[in-house]
Amino acid sequence: MSTPAESSNLMEALVSLAKRRGFIYQSSEIYGGLNGFFDYGPLGVELKRNIRDAWWRDMVHRRDDIVGLETSIIMHPKVWEASGHVAGFTDPLVDCSETKLRYRADQLYYSKFSDHDGNTLGYLVVQEAAHDELLKALDKRIQYLIFKILDREQSGGVHSELKEFTEVKPDELPLCLGPDAKKLGTLTQPRAFNMMFETNVGALKDSSSVAYLRPETAQGMFVDFRNVIDTTRVKLPFGLAQIGKSFRNEITPRNFIFRSREFEQMEMEYFIHPDADWLACHEEWLKWCQDWLKSIGLPESHLSLHEHPKEKLAFYSRRTVDIMFRYPFGVQELWGIAARSDYDLKQHQQFSGVPQTYFDEATKAKVVPHVIEPAVGVDRIFLAVLAAGYAVEDVKDEKGNVEQRTVLRLSPRIAPVKVAVLPLLKNKEQLTTRAKALYAKLKQRYAVQYDDGGAIGKRYRRQDEAGTPWCVTIDFETIEKPGDTFTLRERDSMQQRRITEAELFQLLGEQVY
Amino acid sequence: MSTPAESSNLMEALVSLAKRRGFIYQSSEIYGGLNGFFDYGPLGVELKRNIRDAWWRDMVHRRDDIVGLETSIIMHPKVWEASGHVAGFTDPLVDCSETKLRYRADQLYYSKFSDHDGNTLGYLVVQEAAHDELLKALDKRIQYLIFKILDREQSGGVHSELKEFTEVKPDELPLCLGPDAKKLGTLTQPRAFNMMFETNVGALKDSSSVAYLRPETAQGMFVDFRNVIDTTRVKLPFGLAQIGKSFRNEITPRNFIFRSREFEQMEMEYFIHPDADWLACHEEWLKWCQDWLKSIGLPESHLSLHEHPKEKLAFYSRRTVDIMFRYPFGVQELWGIAARSDYDLKQHQQFSGVPQTYFDEATKAKVVPHVIEPAVGVDRIFLAVLAAGYAVEDVKDEKGNVEQRTVLRLSPRIAPVKVAVLPLLKNKEQLTTRAKALYAKLKQRYAVQYDDGGAIGKRYRRQDEAGTPWCVTIDFETIEKPGDTFTLRERDSMQQRRITEAELFQLLGEQVY
Repeated sequence: MSTPAESSNLMEALVSLAKRRGFIYQSSEIYGGLNGFFDYGPLGVELKRNIRDAWWRDMVHRRDDIVGLETSIIMHPKVWEASGHVAGFTDPLVDCSETKLRYRADQLYYSKFSDHDGNTLGYLVVQEAAHDELLKALDKRIQYLIFKILDREQSGGVHSELKEFTEVKPDELPLCLGPDAKKLGTLTQPRAFNMMFETNVGALKDSSSVAYLRPETAQGMFVDFRNVIDTTRVKLPFGLAQIGKSFRNEITPRNFIFRSREFEQMEMEYFIHPDADWLACHEEWLKWCQDWLKSIGLPESHLSLHEHPKEKLAFYSRRTVDIMFRYPFGVQELWGIAARSDYDLKQHQQFSGVPQTYFDEATKAKVVPHVIEPAVGVDRIFLAVLAAGYAVEDVKDEKGNVEQRTVLRLSPRIAPVKVAVLPLLKNKEQLTTRAKALYAKLKQRYAVQYDDGGAIGKRYRRQDEAGTPWCVTIDFETIEKPGDTFTLRERDSMQQRRITEAELFQLLGEQVY
Repeated sequence: MSTPAESSNLMEALVSLAKRRGFIYQSSEIYGGLNGFFDYGPLGVELKRNIRDAWWRDMVHRRDDIVGLETSIIMHPKVWEASGHVAGFTDPLVDCSETKLRYRADQLYYSKFSDHDGNTLGYLVVQEAAHDELLKALDKRIQYLIFKILDREQSGGVHSELKEFTEVKPDELPLCLGPDAKKLGTLTQPRAFNMMFETNVGALKDSSSVAYLRPETAQGMFVDFRNVIDTTRVKLPFGLAQIGKSFRNEITPRNFIFRSREFEQMEMEYFIHPDADWLACHEEWLKWCQDWLKSIGLPESHLSLHEHPKEKLAFYSRRTVDIMFRYPFGVQELWGIAARSDYDLKQHQQFSGVPQTYFDEATKAKVVPHVIEPAVGVDRIFLAVLAAGYAVEDVKDEKGNVEQRTVLRLSPRIAPVKVAVLPLLKNKEQLTTRAKALYAKLKQRYAVQYDDGGAIGKRYRRQDEAGTPWCVTIDFETIEKPGDTFTLRERDSMQQRRITEAELFQLLGEQVY
């Protein structure tokens, strides 16, 4: 494991690279940005598209049992009543009257601090961070409490164990010192804040016209379940897959694109017979998702599983396991695989009055299927492949001098640029003509770049940083020797070999799938 | 030209096919739907993806001068002040106090109706429709006015010319008979209604937190203009391309997916030097867009151009030409190509205080580029290819009997399913084994279907209706004769020929690009 300092350095390096090379910009940056919103630049949009396309090909095209959907972002408000989002899709919000900052109570921790006689001096509140950081922050607040507020010499007081701020009691609040506050008692009791963005559809602006931006794509699949059964030839078990934007009015968006207010999901609802072995199916999808993450280049060493404890599951949920990824800021959820029983379909059946059943040919009975749901965020995968792929290495230049290179080890499946075509010299027509011909042919099928600017070593570095798996250099051997071969330079090994055009297309065909 | 009845029949047939085959569903249908919102079903999502992908490949990957972007749907509200949308992105809204219906004044027409002595009897208001329909509707309202309201025998009164309802005068309103009203004077004076959907970002719900769902993707390109210049190696002229959802709170969404409240745009901003020949560039893009529409199968016969009259252009606009498409409900805008001068960048420069300039190496001067903007809607293209491709034909079945087939002539570039693999018989293992092997190989690269249900002729019909360009039948000749050939059946000609696997992949490689 890296130290906190290394982690925060890595995160800074990623944010900086993302901006510098046009992967990710802050949204509306010239207007000071908008917290929790991001734009994807020229390299970023290609990487994002490739993640989506790889998922769609593997999830939909290459399977026989899954079909796609694209449902609207704004749906009938009843959908969100039935799903439980109107009543329960809330975060516990805490305001600080002094700083006007807002916190999520489940991201705050507090601890009682007493003097040696056991008299309570106050409650120190800190925001969630890695454990060591949390204790350090607590220590700092204790100093602050004692010196500035209580105006005492530091005495060897004792602080009790950390508790989540959601458990704070009304009589404790007046003695709480908020994470950024300078006075006691400025935090409010946590209150439920609904995270759905609201809007109004139509010319009237009243409760009758309220609609929501979807906080998840999943409900689209449930609401269209009968439509798909009625208009295609799917048979249980089958899945409905969707890629699309979702919106959550997060109180504290953070960790770059990890928790933002506008994000993109890839969700699939896999419908199974109520009598089917749901646990086996759940395990299958858990494996499928892990395999898929490895297929786009995420190393096994960064992945782990988190089984949600039974007592924390929603009443209808049978099991949820998250595939976790070791981000620079900690191990966090990447892909949730949930066994949701028949809850959603039954809710929509009840709220709409329209039967959400499937006719089972075998038993001649109508059944409401159960569902296994693997749900993942495109942006979280994006950040994971950046984090796992990023490295700064010492390498030798052409003259044997040691220099540093930044490299982004992205799988060829998802790399934004597949091949860079480089004429060794930009002013030698024979070289550029051949290079341009190769480039023209490649770009009919792949995202490729032509780069003739600067020394060849510098151009390699530029492509390393963009994650381009291969550079092809058109050199004197290409034009002077028989065979029409180029120099193929591999990003990761930096090794070079001769390759023909046919071999290059074969390599791409195999690696970019 | 088709008659109005034929047109409305075609539209009904398209809506019905779209639902029946899983192209398009009404959003939230089990809850009674939500006006102006649609879902794309299993076939629809593939068609939509293919339209987007073809555009992206041709617009971004296959060109050297255009890079992609994906900017957020919710941007800083200042963006929409600078762009002019907060002040001016309005439609003239008219309410009817009797029916509670709402109209757009620019879609209403009215006419004065007088008796023979020249006394004004009233003003008849009708909603926009094809010209003949409009006059017919007017006639009907005149009857209504005379008999029901004025309680007179029909006298040969006269009605004056039609005027747009935006020009209605306050003293005319009390005598206006609304399109669906039974009393006079129930329509309101048109008032400006802003079409941007509003929401609030953050926990506060007040004017400081108001944000908008973008009504166009274009502003994302302008706001990120400097970011792209600073982080890539683009040189003028260059373009920024984006595909993404936009939202407009239309007063009267209609014509199926043609005018909906949530839709998807493909926009490109092409930045040119202020001294460049903008008219030549505009013409080039006009041609490019028309060629592209033909490349995805839209027939030239359905396309036309509409030059916006100079006096109707915004003050900053130099020229706008729309590529029009002959939809079943009339000739309507498909793709707008606008020369927008340097208006947008200058507005953002002024509102943000951040220079929106480009350093011109040749003249060593900073310039604010001008822009040519081709903007098209994915959903409008979707509807156009459905409308142009749909046909019902008399064909002969295997026994020579005449039957009808519904066929969707979609270009192989965008067809949802590229190939259907059909074993002649489903219970003959040699046939199904070979068919499944071919299917497994094809689906690694293409969206394909395996269909063994029912007579072969019935399966062809099913694929015709889905727009599948080719069916491949594995028959006795495949397994009994040398050469391992299949029957390739073409959708449009319905002709059949023998083809090998290698030839099939070559055909796909050439036609699906």
